Amino acid sequence: MAFETYGELGEGRDNAVWVCHALTGDAHPASHQEGDPPGWWEGMIGPGLPLDTRKWFIVCSNVLGGCSGTTGPSFPHPEDGLPWELRFPPITVGDMVRVQRELARALGIRRFALVVGGSLGAMQALEWAAQAPQRVQRVLALAGPWASSPQAIAWNEVGRQAILLDLERKGTGVGGMALARMLAMITYRSNQEFQARFGRRERLAPAESPHPFALQYQVESYLHHHGEKLVRRFDPYSYLYLTRAMDFFDLGAHPEETWEKVRAAGVRVMAAGIDSDILYPAVEIKELVRHLQKRGIRAVYEEIRSLHGHDAFLIEKEATGALVEKALHM
Amino acid sequence: MAFETYGELGEGRDNAVWVCHALTGDAHPASHQEGDPPGWWEGMIGPGLPLDTRKWFIVCSNVLGGCSGTTGPSFPHPEDGLPWELRFPPITVGDMVRVQRELARALGIRRFALVVGGSLGAMQALEWAAQAPQRVQRVLALAGPWASSPQAIAWNEVGRQAILLDLERKGTGVGGMALARMLAMITYRSNQEFQARFGRRERLAPAESPHPFALQYQVESYLHHHGEKLVRRFDPYSYLYLTRAMDFFDLGAHPEETWEKVRAAGVRVMAAGIDSDILYPAVEIKELVRHLQKRGIRAVYEEIRSLHGHDAFLIEKEATGALVEKALHM
Repeated sequence: MAFETYGELGEGRDNAVWVCHALTGDAHPASHQEGDPPGWWEGMIGPGLPLDTRKWFIVCSNVLGGCSGTTGPSFPHPEDGLPWELRFPPITVGDMVRVQRELARALGIRRFALVVGGSLGAMQALEWAAQAPQRVQRVLALAGPWASSPQAIAWNEVGRQAILLDLERKGTGVGGMALARMLAMITYRSNQEFQARFGRRERLAPAESPHPFALQYQVESYLHHHGEKLVRRFDPYSYLYLTRAMDFFDLGAHPEETWEKVRAAGVRVMAAGIDSDILYPAVEIKELVRHLQKRGIRAVYEEIRSLHGHDAFLIEKEATGALVEKALHM
Repeated sequence: MAFETYGELGEGRDNAVWVCHALTGDAHPASHQEGDPPGWWEGMIGPGLPLDTRKWFIVCSNVLGGCSGTTGPSFPHPEDGLPWELRFPPITVGDMVRVQRELARALGIRRFALVVGGSLGAMQALEWAAQAPQRVQRVLALAGPWASSPQAIAWNEVGRQAILLDLERKGTGVGGMALARMLAMITYRSNQEFQARFGRRERLAPAESPHPFALQYQVESYLHHHGEKLVRRFDPYSYLYLTRAMDFFDLGAHPEETWEKVRAAGVRVMAAGIDSDILYPAVEIKELVRHLQKRGIRAVYEEIRSLHGHDAFLIEKEATGALVEKALHM
């Protein structure tokens, strides 16, 4: 397991905050000091920032099945030393949290003041509460649902099929993953953002091409750029396993006793939707809150207003930071 | 050019209705008599139906660049007799309408009482008005925009990249097109429909598989079914050229004089949005109407309420039929 920590664990061993990353994130949410490379949640963790390192002990680990240091399908199989690839077993968000709990134990953390994450990270944060309600005081779930919707499964399935098609055609899966990422980027952003940002503008220097399928519009360059960027840092097999784990995610699969324990432990949940999110629409986050409330759990709904769609939890630092601070004091 | 007609052209040669098909449609919108295979708009054309063949002379042709009888990239190149494939020139919706006008001339039609279509068909119907306002009394544009949005271009680009990836990997493009279709099906339907229809239900007989990427959820089977169905009747190169023609579509590219002529000719436009459409959202259809009204053109907005998303113009026969009848009398 790859992980990073920020700040110090206090005497009571209860000032800890677990930060869960999203699909293609890693264990490095923020730089530790000047000169350090920025993280995927830069500006959220540090002295005087929403997750103030003078007060909180922050932990972030790469998820099980990932490709940034924690065991995943690109790791060597113990039998032959070759990568696991499709021999890797299917994993769930529940499995991710089970290994995270082992790490928390090893770090000596008694109880988390907050478990926070967005998207797949929100799923982990909610699963933390379900698995270990005695260990979790508060959860902040950003743009994550009660269960993956069939539409969310459908987007994932198309992305996976691109990777599997590439593998079938004797490729490495990398070209297919670029395509999966291009598709995912559309679902991470919004129609309105693309309209405002790209409109129908063409590229400054359109490629000379014998057919009309060379990149012509700025929005196409944007997608290709993100596709190419991901393949430099991500593994296609991890992409398959992690998206499948998201599909499997369904808090409704927990028995009622689980929720009774969460209620009894007094876990407080804040769930935030994003008004322009098309992947996990705000209406699904409201539904998550209703599901929790129905089970007697203290859950509140918040909304981030943004043009940026699903990715707003990464982009809207001010609004998201305000929610983190609010969640820490709920 | 492949085309079909229904009913008889009257004495005045002005009782004609042109029906424009969408991306993967063809020249067969409806059966001509019992026993005839059903068409893509079955129930809309016939005696006593919204496009009543006792009154109207209805024409539908396969679009330029298509693969159901009209010249397209699967046709033999005149020089070597091999398919045009990527040597086919880029085409636009304007080009499609230009060849349709030749057919209309050959059929002796003086003026169309109505030009109607949905999606790419709506683009053609609107383009008809722009190109030949003297030949078009009324337009009914169902779920088609003023211009393709960057998000619509983005969806198309991902689909095309799947086909191009397949071709690069020495495939026929067919596997890539199945993938493009799977993606497109998500944008043709709605989150709410998938929720109601599939939920998180699993397949009755899940495939045995060594990895968790075999079809497991009903929504996945649905997508695969539609992907496989399309490849039996459609050409991947046509898919490339026709989606690109949709990307190019921008009525704003016509000069102001064009719209002055449309206004002067008294063309009446009805544009219908679908409340659950995520491909060409209702807000974009309202914008189309505003664009036309701003130019002094008689345009009205209607809305189809449906769970089915973009495809509602094919599915909601009653609501769509009512709009056709209303448009014929506006």
